[in-house]
Amino acid sequence: MVQRRELVAGAGAAAVAAAGSFPKPAIAQAVPTIKWRMASSFPKSLDTLYGGAELFCKTVADLTDGKFQIQLFAAGEIVPGLQVLDAVQNNTVEAGQTAMYYYFGKNPAFTFGTALPFGLNARMMNAWFYHGGGNELLNEFFAKFGVYGIPGGNTNCQMGGWFRKEIKTVDDLKGLKFRVGGFAGRILQKLGVVPQQIAAGDIYPALEKGTIDAAEWVGPYDDEKLGFYKVAQYYYYPGWWEGGPCPHLIFNLGKWNELPKLYKEACITAGAQTNVWMSAKYDHLNPAALKRLVAQGTQLRPFPAEVIEACYAAARDLYAEISKENSDFKKLYDSVAAYRSEQYLWWQVAEYTFDTYMIRLRAKG
Amino acid sequence: MVQRRELVAGAGAAAVAAAGSFPKPAIAQAVPTIKWRMASSFPKSLDTLYGGAELFCKTVADLTDGKFQIQLFAAGEIVPGLQVLDAVQNNTVEAGQTAMYYYFGKNPAFTFGTALPFGLNARMMNAWFYHGGGNELLNEFFAKFGVYGIPGGNTNCQMGGWFRKEIKTVDDLKGLKFRVGGFAGRILQKLGVVPQQIAAGDIYPALEKGTIDAAEWVGPYDDEKLGFYKVAQYYYYPGWWEGGPCPHLIFNLGKWNELPKLYKEACITAGAQTNVWMSAKYDHLNPAALKRLVAQGTQLRPFPAEVIEACYAAARDLYAEISKENSDFKKLYDSVAAYRSEQYLWWQVAEYTFDTYMIRLRAKG
Repeated sequence: MVQRRELVAGAGAAAVAAAGSFPKPAIAQAVPTIKWRMASSFPKSLDTLYGGAELFCKTVADLTDGKFQIQLFAAGEIVPGLQVLDAVQNNTVEAGQTAMYYYFGKNPAFTFGTALPFGLNARMMNAWFYHGGGNELLNEFFAKFGVYGIPGGNTNCQMGGWFRKEIKTVDDLKGLKFRVGGFAGRILQKLGVVPQQIAAGDIYPALEKGTIDAAEWVGPYDDEKLGFYKVAQYYYYPGWWEGGPCPHLIFNLGKWNELPKLYKEACITAGAQTNVWMSAKYDHLNPAALKRLVAQGTQLRPFPAEVIEACYAAARDLYAEISKENSDFKKLYDSVAAYRSEQYLWWQVAEYTFDTYMIRLRAKG
Repeated sequence: MVQRRELVAGAGAAAVAAAGSFPKPAIAQAVPTIKWRMASSFPKSLDTLYGGAELFCKTVADLTDGKFQIQLFAAGEIVPGLQVLDAVQNNTVEAGQTAMYYYFGKNPAFTFGTALPFGLNARMMNAWFYHGGGNELLNEFFAKFGVYGIPGGNTNCQMGGWFRKEIKTVDDLKGLKFRVGGFAGRILQKLGVVPQQIAAGDIYPALEKGTIDAAEWVGPYDDEKLGFYKVAQYYYYPGWWEGGPCPHLIFNLGKWNELPKLYKEACITAGAQTNVWMSAKYDHLNPAALKRLVAQGTQLRPFPAEVIEACYAAARDLYAEISKENSDFKKLYDSVAAYRSEQYLWWQVAEYTFDTYMIRLRAKG
């Protein structure tokens, strides 16, 4: 039989831990009517990210014949987008949709929930989550903050962002005021970048006025909506800090443990569906957006190898420093670093070579 | 709101078509007890492929509180592995797990359900299925054979197979007796290959005796079980005929249309979960298998560019020929060919460049 535990990672341990606190009859609560609230970190306008949470909530309701209702709220409707973890931990809301790396200030180990810079690509993230022990390790860590998490999508590899001038050498990073999300800023700081934390709606005016020199968000489809192409010409790739970033669906741990088995099953299955749906949606929408951006004058640029290599060296130094003082980080880093090496050993053979030939054949017409 | 129809593609049309045939009260049949049988094309020993069907059946049962039971049978238990489509069409069994390209002899358009040679990679397949109109187009075609299909996994890009001698030029393909699954044989025939259709269990002795010169199956994890490395030294990549092959879960169309909405929802959600689970499982298991094979003396070889390009030209010729005489094939080919061009336009930017750097950085240590 298939190992069902691979998909319900951590649920077992949590259920055992909570058994004393939440005794309940076996049958009577099998299909109770439950109404929860979910706070998203994202605005409704992001139909890829927020749309994933909509799909999740609708599917859970459909699968339970409408008995388990999770009402969804956009960023700012109940709590600000970056306070979703706190709201779920405090049970202000029972559930949330967020990127766990937003909370790297509480503990840098949160970055592993979403993306480690120079980490796994989108498909490798799923292998690690579902089969490589990732979900177990993450939920062991998330439990310290009173939440249970399910992978809830992927933006796929992101772009490196919008720059007003070209980056040709490592020196060009010095003093660069760069709006960059989360943990990557700590790596870039080592190379002289001045990382900026700016909310989505405030990035465009800052870039227009020159208050900042560059800004990254997600990729062509989402970035186009924010209009960056109008005020910065150079669009760099890849976003090496986000090779396969995963937003999470999170639940107050006590509330999660109280859920009937059927409803947990509905959440886990709907979460896996949301995961594949969102990644597929980004792949579907990005090509046309990229073409529109280029037609409007955007210049695509790869980060020079010299810059990538300097960033990689800085990242490894930072990971070693944090691992010395933070056992949560070390445990997750050791898992991801070993997994990444195995995964790319295989990826470079069939998968990468297939893509290489397909790209070449396409270019030849 | 999210477009739920993206995931239930084709279900609406099928339901409308059948509404006259299967009138039913709105409530009374909401949660009937239903027992179905599913015939798989795969043996139990393939815990990745067959394991996906196990997960699907278990999840559907769990989501319906045990009321919708689908009992799974391995290849040969009810019908031989390559007769699953017929068995589902004839309602010998209500459901099946199979690779639709096995039936390319009935109509070459079946190849689009699984993989078009030089087609989409695994992630692009999902984008096409769920958002690019793929599920709608396929189910329009499958309906002619009385079945409804749901994508049920991915092996990810396959290997090109095991060869007893090296392939250095296109001439080396002439007269080569090659065990190769399905539609790819028709392309290779144009280059002088003599394709062989041989069931899994008979490949090893044929390769050992020299009755055939080469054989392809799936990839490291599955191939290792069949022992090919003991009798053929050269392991070629990539399997350009299977960039992201998807096994399908199929249902007798009349039976599918009779299902209560809740049970259809359970199948569709569980199918999406199975899809991401299987792809992740292959990614998880293949690296260690590859290392074991290489440790046992297997020599990895990429197909030479000259060979790949000759195969690509032959494939394009074949697609043009079939499109002239087969409107099912043409409709699906036009969709996939256009989609592939858009997808690789974008893929080569962030995703491929990220992988390129990660592979280089890994090699440098």
